[in-house]
Amino acid sequence: MGEKHQVVILGGGFGGLAAAQKLKRAPVEVTLIDRRNFHLFQPLLYQVATGSLSPGEIAAPLRGVLSRQKNTQVLLGEAGDVDPVAKRVILHDGASFEYDSLIVATGTQTSYYGNDSWREWAPSLKSIEEATAIRHKILYAFERAERAATPEEVHAWLTFVIVGAGATGIELAGALGEIANETLRHDFRKIDPQQARIILMEGAPRVLGPFPEDLSAKAEKLVTRLGVEVIKGVMVTDIDATGVTFKRGDSGETLAAKTVLWAGGVTATPFARKVAERTNSETDRNGRIKVNRDLTVPNFPDIFIIGDLAHAVDEKGAPLPGVAQVAMQGGAYAAKVIRARLGGKQAPPPFHYFNKGEMAVIGRAAAVANIFGVHVSGLLAWLMWLFIHLIYIVEFQNRVQVFVQWGFEYLTFSRGARLITGTAATDSVDQAGTMSNGSE
Amino acid sequence: MGEKHQVVILGGGFGGLAAAQKLKRAPVEVTLIDRRNFHLFQPLLYQVATGSLSPGEIAAPLRGVLSRQKNTQVLLGEAGDVDPVAKRVILHDGASFEYDSLIVATGTQTSYYGNDSWREWAPSLKSIEEATAIRHKILYAFERAERAATPEEVHAWLTFVIVGAGATGIELAGALGEIANETLRHDFRKIDPQQARIILMEGAPRVLGPFPEDLSAKAEKLVTRLGVEVIKGVMVTDIDATGVTFKRGDSGETLAAKTVLWAGGVTATPFARKVAERTNSETDRNGRIKVNRDLTVPNFPDIFIIGDLAHAVDEKGAPLPGVAQVAMQGGAYAAKVIRARLGGKQAPPPFHYFNKGEMAVIGRAAAVANIFGVHVSGLLAWLMWLFIHLIYIVEFQNRVQVFVQWGFEYLTFSRGARLITGTAATDSVDQAGTMSNGSE
Repeated sequence: MGEKHQVVILGGGFGGLAAAQKLKRAPVEVTLIDRRNFHLFQPLLYQVATGSLSPGEIAAPLRGVLSRQKNTQVLLGEAGDVDPVAKRVILHDGASFEYDSLIVATGTQTSYYGNDSWREWAPSLKSIEEATAIRHKILYAFERAERAATPEEVHAWLTFVIVGAGATGIELAGALGEIANETLRHDFRKIDPQQARIILMEGAPRVLGPFPEDLSAKAEKLVTRLGVEVIKGVMVTDIDATGVTFKRGDSGETLAAKTVLWAGGVTATPFARKVAERTNSETDRNGRIKVNRDLTVPNFPDIFIIGDLAHAVDEKGAPLPGVAQVAMQGGAYAAKVIRARLGGKQAPPPFHYFNKGEMAVIGRAAAVANIFGVHVSGLLAWLMWLFIHLIYIVEFQNRVQVFVQWGFEYLTFSRGARLITGTAATDSVDQAGTMSNGSE
Repeated sequence: MGEKHQVVILGGGFGGLAAAQKLKRAPVEVTLIDRRNFHLFQPLLYQVATGSLSPGEIAAPLRGVLSRQKNTQVLLGEAGDVDPVAKRVILHDGASFEYDSLIVATGTQTSYYGNDSWREWAPSLKSIEEATAIRHKILYAFERAERAATPEEVHAWLTFVIVGAGATGIELAGALGEIANETLRHDFRKIDPQQARIILMEGAPRVLGPFPEDLSAKAEKLVTRLGVEVIKGVMVTDIDATGVTFKRGDSGETLAAKTVLWAGGVTATPFARKVAERTNSETDRNGRIKVNRDLTVPNFPDIFIIGDLAHAVDEKGAPLPGVAQVAMQGGAYAAKVIRARLGGKQAPPPFHYFNKGEMAVIGRAAAVANIFGVHVSGLLAWLMWLFIHLIYIVEFQNRVQVFVQWGFEYLTFSRGARLITGTAATDSVDQAGTMSNGSE
């Protein structure tokens, strides 16, 4: 339809949305396809998992965000394949879309390093559904502990293991520490939630690997103050219904824990593997596609890969991290290249990632941040973090009340959203079978 | 355990929670058992279904609400059976609880009048999960219409039928009218959401049966103004994937509609039928248990039935309606009887329902209300409705921001919570199969 240059964008995350928005005034027709109808503010997903925020508060309907952008249509659908010669994307449902330029921003999925059976026992934090499943798991563990028959059972239900001490792992651990020590403090009669054991496991010798060393040390100190035990330099060898088995040095250990959360690595999605295959692209060990310095796929200058899925390198040849900032800047860059081509202008210089810094939040009013090389921690870092996220959300959501509510709950230690939804909560009791006899 | 009088309350809805709270200072031990860990503010459930509120905003964790009430414990579990002679409640998971007094407040479930296959095509609005499923269905219909191949298909996806014009049906229809005419107005490129057809079907000759006639007429006028077609005096004879078949007079008609919502009747749960059986109780045609004037089961003065499940009658022998007010007052009454018995005092007079009135909301800033016999409609009724609900929520939730947010969204026509969650949205596309070819 139409004679305008057709841009198809796959994925409405940070990268895809930025690309669409930067094409607002370009002489193109944009089709943004996502399998969900909303843009998710992923950095706050752990707040949903720990019951501080509701899903609706960290997501914005893509149609709403783009409704005033007349050259853009949003469609619900999941990309299944691409034909880079016919320049066509094929959706799972069989529909196909021709493009003049394609921007692939479909992200990655969680990797269990080949142990997919662990997924059942250790959910990860990638989607709204996983976040609510984790919330269910955490709150349900306290419920089960309250009704447990033996001290061993209570102990297993009150032991929480988080595998992976990157930003997500640190944030989950900090929030869990607060739940046990503050939020649920007075809610139970038989157990004391403060007895909960929260263990953060990491394979590397320090937490927050990508951060400078002093901030790693600071983060570990802050999270320890919230009652979290940090175990570094261990390798998880098994996860099942009873807990986690891991290797520390030469010896193996087993930890009885009913709640294990996965904050480990990422890998390519099946669609991403299709893209790599169809374009004969090289991938790195995480399945990310190696792109040119202008974020296009070698030999296919009309296909851009941006965000987590792209293995892009900086001036020194070092790969760029899979963070929101890289995705957003990548999306804007791809839009710029397309605009330049259509305007007959010279190609922009290679993509340069402008690193504004990185942050991780550790519980209420504490964080660590590396802003333009300046290392900050504690309340100040937290306020900076809050401010930056506030600006971003307000920018396209106009929803200040997220932070009003959240600030309020931080002050009062309440968690309005701590519901167990999904399948009826008691189903799992029945399945687990070993419920104590509560007759008394 | 202990020698105190054991009160077991089944269900943490309006009735059960009120009973527990009124036993706060009584010399008893209270065990409140619910299959969910939260109290649900059901009158606002339609706001979740239509994307104005998030689940967390209309629910409060039972533990949180009762955490300062030291004589009360909250347990997650689902009642399966009762032994009224041994005075014991048995949960689905096998645990059992002995009681001295039992308060059954487990409510009712949706009735499809014997046509349980309709449930698949026409979800009802009883739980958080059903509300989010309905939200999914509504938003998804517009997405499908945008991608539909033929005008007939567009038409079927943009036809919404609500069966039952009680308060829930009226409120759903009004909210749907607003979604189509305001919220989504600018969000699509191929369809015009204002073309959506919203049909409210009712078997009775007027909407809002329990309300006075002038308010019924007013409500119909208000909902019609929002673009809703009201069809009265019809009987639905079939619901399937393609739409609704119904009888009007002697002739049958079929309406092609991909979205059908059920706001019909209620019936007893399997547990309620067990209670009736074990106590040899009479039930009405909806399966509600006929109770004495003091809300106890005939021959079992230690078992109270309150709320929707009770068929209680007023001074004139007329059955009390299944509304929150009756449940809350019934809960408080049961607590009063138990306190009187334990204090060796005279039994309180029979339960008297103090009817403060009834209300239904029709879209933004419009409602009908019957307050102490005074009939009010329009903005004034809506403000009264808002005020009354505000007070109730604040009372035990301290969460003013629900109404701040909601008022804000009413003004801006935005719906922050219009996410499609649950199983990945595109799965259903695949299942439905007939997706249009979007290549253009």
